[in-house]
Order: sequence, then C-alpha cells, then structure tokens
Amino acid sequence: MATIKDVAKRAQVSVATVSRVLNHDQRVKPETKEAVEKVIDELGYSPNLLGRNLRRSSTYNILVLLPTISNQFYSAIIKGIREEMTTLGYNVMIGITDLDVNVEMKHIQLLENKLVDGIIFFTPQIDSVTLTKFGQMYPVIQCSEYVEGAKLSLVSIDNKQAAYDATKYLIQLGNKHIALVTSEKSYTSSKLREEGFREALREHQIPINEELIYYADYTPHSGIEAAKALLLKRQPPTAIFTISDSLAIGVIQGLKACGKKVGEDIDVIGFDNTFISKFYEPTITTVSQPRLEMGKQAARLLLNKIQNIGSENETIFLPHELMIRESTK
Amino acid sequence: MATIKDVAKRAQVSVATVSRVLNHDQRVKPETKEAVEKVIDELGYSPNLLGRNLRRSSTYNILVLLPTISNQFYSAIIKGIREEMTTLGYNVMIGITDLDVNVEMKHIQLLENKLVDGIIFFTPQIDSVTLTKFGQMYPVIQCSEYVEGAKLSLVSIDNKQAAYDATKYLIQLGNKHIALVTSEKSYTSSKLREEGFREALREHQIPINEELIYYADYTPHSGIEAAKALLLKRQPPTAIFTISDSLAIGVIQGLKACGKKVGEDIDVIGFDNTFISKFYEPTITTVSQPRLEMGKQAARLLLNKIQNIGSENETIFLPHELMIRESTK
Repeated sequence: MATIKDVAKRAQVSVATVSRVLNHDQRVKPETKEAVEKVIDELGYSPNLLGRNLRRSSTYNILVLLPTISNQFYSAIIKGIREEMTTLGYNVMIGITDLDVNVEMKHIQLLENKLVDGIIFFTPQIDSVTLTKFGQMYPVIQCSEYVEGAKLSLVSIDNKQAAYDATKYLIQLGNKHIALVTSEKSYTSSKLREEGFREALREHQIPINEELIYYADYTPHSGIEAAKALLLKRQPPTAIFTISDSLAIGVIQGLKACGKKVGEDIDVIGFDNTFISKFYEPTITTVSQPRLEMGKQAARLLLNKIQNIGSENETIFLPHELMIRESTK
Repeated sequence: MATIKDVAKRAQVSVATVSRVLNHDQRVKPETKEAVEKVIDELGYSPNLLGRNLRRSSTYNILVLLPTISNQFYSAIIKGIREEMTTLGYNVMIGITDLDVNVEMKHIQLLENKLVDGIIFFTPQIDSVTLTKFGQMYPVIQCSEYVEGAKLSLVSIDNKQAAYDATKYLIQLGNKHIALVTSEKSYTSSKLREEGFREALREHQIPINEELIYYADYTPHSGIEAAKALLLKRQPPTAIFTISDSLAIGVIQGLKACGKKVGEDIDVIGFDNTFISKFYEPTITTVSQPRLEMGKQAARLLLNKIQNIGSENETIFLPHELMIRESTK
C-alpha cells in the first residue's frame, strides 16, 4: 500500500503539499495539484480519512440547533457565532429541531459519535436535568431562548426587564388600556415578557385587564386575528405590546383593516428589531436584542467548554434597547 | 472489556434495549433506562461509537449548503427537503458558505470523511469541471441557483421564462417604459432573468433602453437607490421588474419617498413570493417558485445518488406562477 510519503517522493514535493492537495487547499498551484493528483492515481494511493478523523481529538465542526430557520431573528446571531468560530478554524453547521425532543437527541448523538465538538442550543426541549447531564459530558451551551434550571452556560437578554421597559414606554405615552399579544406556547421568554408586562402595569397602578391579554402563535395571521378580537372588547386597548415583530406586523394589518391609524389612534410595539420592522409602513417601535454580540458571546462560551469541559458555567444577559419608530405616537 | 451483551445480561434486558438506551430512544421506560445505565456504570462499559460509525456504510446525515440564512426564500425549500429526508431516517444539517469556494471545499471534506452521505448545493461557487468531478465521486446535486455546465442532477425553475412572463404582464398592462432592477453579481438566475426580460421587450417590439437596466445588490437599501436613480432618467419607467422581493420592497419605498403611488402611477413586480410580499403595503405582485416541491424533488434526486452514485443525472424545471397583487394596476 502506497503511503503519503511515497506520493510526496514520486511527485517531488513535500508531504505537507500532498496533504494540502488532499484537503483541496486553494493555495496549491494548479500545476502542482495536477502533478500530485497524477501520482496519487498512478500509485493508487488512498488517504485513510476515517482513520485521520479517529485520531483527531477535535473535528472542528460545531452545531447550532435552531427550532426553525423561517425566522429572520436568528441570522444575525448565527453571523456572530460564525465570525468567532471560523477565525479559529471551526466549521459551523446548523440543525433544525422543529421543537422536537427526539430530533434534539439525534443531534446529541453527533456529539457522542465525535462528528461535532459542541452544540449551541436555541430553545431546547430537553428537560433541565438531562440537559445539565449533557453539559457535564459534552460542550453544550444555551443561547437566546433557554430552559430555566439547566446548569449550562447561557447568553440571552433580560426578557422581563425588556418587556417592562416597552410597557413602561407605552404608559409614559399616556396609555391606560394596554393589551399584550403573546405566545400561546409557554416559552421561557414569553413567560418572562408577560411577567415584565404585568409588573410595569402594577408598578404604575394600572389595573390589569385580563381580557386584553391575547394568546396567539408567532405568525402575522394570528396577529391580525388578535387585533380584530381586541378591538371588540368592552374596553378596547389604546396600545398593544406584542412579543415579536411578526406578530406586530399582523396586529398592525388587523388594526389598519379596522380603520385604525397606527401611531396616531393606537400604539404598537414589537420585539426583536428584525429587518422588516425598519421597512414596514409604519416603521415599528421594537425591542432590539444585540444579536451579533449574542452570537459572539455564545461562541466564546462554547469554546470555553470545548477547551475545558469542567470550566465554570457562565450566565450572560446582554443589554437590550427600545427602538422608537412610527408605530408609537 | 465489557460488551453490550454483558450489559444486557446483567440488566436482564435484550441487547436491543441496551442499544436503545445508548441511543436515548424515548420509547424506553425510565425505570429500564435507569437500570441499564446503572449496569453500564458498574461494568464500565463504553460503546465503541466511532467504530460503529466506521462500520456503517451510511451516516444518515445529509448537508444542505446555503449561501446565507438571512434569506426567507430558503426556508420552504429546506422544509421540503426535510419532509422527505426525515421520514427516511436522515438528519438534515445546514452549512453556510457566504459564497466562499474555500468554505464549500471544507464541506466537501465532510463527504470525504464520511461524516455526511450527500450534499445539496444552492449557489455553488466551485467551477463546473470540479463540481462535475465531485458529482462522479459523491452524492451531490444542485438546487435552485446552479452552475451552468456542471453535470449534476438539478432542480430549479425556468428563470428565463419566469422573467419573460413577468415582463410580458407589465407590457400587457400598457407599459412601454419598463425598468429592470437586477443583481450586480452575475448569478445564473439573474443572467437568465435579464435574458427573459430583454426577450419579452424584443418580442413585443419595445426598444430596450439600457438606461433603465439598473444593477443593484439584493438589499432593500439598494432598491431604494435604484428607484430614485430610475426616476431621474430622461425617460423614467412606468413599470419596474425586480429580480427579488427584497429589492421590490426597497424600490417601492424609494418610489413612495418620491411621491409615487405604486400600483397606480407605477407598477412593480418582485420575485420569489416571500412571506412579506403578501403582507407589505401594497401587497407585491411577484413570481412564485414552488419551493416546497423544489425541496422534495431535491431530496429525491439526492437519494437517487446516495442509492446509486452511477445513476443518470436528472434536470428538473418546476413550474412557476405569477402572483398578481396590488403593486401592479
């Protein structure tokens, strides 16, 4: 069996050059590449790639597990993760879970089988005890949406405070009848945002009208329905806080359809500062999360764990910002 | 060294049950799981996961290579791919290339190292000769945006015909001065769409005014600039065909800023039927690609190659559809 040394000798190049050719390194001159490939063919040399993979302690692949890719929110976070990881030679792959715990478990197997070095979870469905156990065995961290109680490193924002700040702003604009359009599913973030909403009303001595708390899914369609339903209440709202921009878009559409002028007759605030919130008509007041920075911090937290699985868990809450635009007066 | 049989015997369960516990199969009862894990600990049993991976001819992982994830266009295609692949037990992972050929090559290594069974390329940057060579060695196919001349299976739409149809519709509305806002980068799709645009004008005896062909990037910002620049031409357009919805949104914003009523004073057509085209104001006339079906066909083409690398290449152009909405009169 020919070895890589035999190939190098016959092709009159270094072993490193043969290795570069095998790795499709673009720095190898085309002539050299051709000559080496010719020798490889002549000698019938076959690199033991699987063996190579076995010997390596790291694969330099990491996995990001998203619940869905049809949400613009994630793209800037992924960009931050990739900026940090790729400069260190890591390849970032994305898996989609559809919030299915079995799909998450399948991806955990990639860690066990040493196909990836670590996982960044968004919105994990695995219970906190199991997640904590995985965190002791493998480099896994949580980013953005998380499981409370799981002992893993985590980067997110203070969702309760962010919702508090948005609601407080609506109160400061003079609103006394403020609706919340939130998720029917109980995510940690939606739970905390509802808490922040309620706390802001309470602290400003505004009675909470449970009729004005509407549970929807994350689609614009359900936002349209929410707006129409809220306008039919005995005491319709003069302001609506929604927990996502996609819901805000639907709410604004629904309000327009009922003849309301958003930003004049009624105020609307979204969440996430997705690109469409800047381009919608009206432009949408929304809570901005520092998504690029969140991705970078997630990469850093994962690298800490890859380098030392026993390193202490960190919890980071990055600052949020209320972006004031046309949808509030 | 303890074997899986030793574990099964001591735990008084079948080998299959031990295997299920190792694979985190949710069908195993918690008590059984606990008992098996206890025996695993007692015997110090360690499954040879890497060995298992070596022995398997398939990893049941496939990779989808996207140029970016900040484009809503891909999500429905990915959904189609996943629907087909996951029912067959495949796990779908996504890689992001940023249109960098070196990143593509890194992902090809995952095929070589048998970490994935196949790759679906969107917008590959690898040259057609190399891509053809990879296609002979590994299950790789192209979806949506493709390299012309590469001998790989392919599923896309007839981009030239789609642009022809959109332009013809603008002509039928009575427009004689029609602008094209297209990509400054020469993608196969943008090249073909420009050809279709030109052919529609030619066939309807409308002289092509090169001043009304504007090269932009894919962002709404460049669409705004395009609209403003086109309105300043000696002969401003009465209709604008853009090669993406994100460009159309920018163009509409730019036109509004210049006091134009879109759908009355001037017609605009986008491309891709992304979700925002239905929710924008005005709603946007656009070319719909059958994205879910495109994903399903891509999965089928890849499976054909995974099952038989020597199977004949297929080229499939799926039907497109012009979605008529408010942005055209």
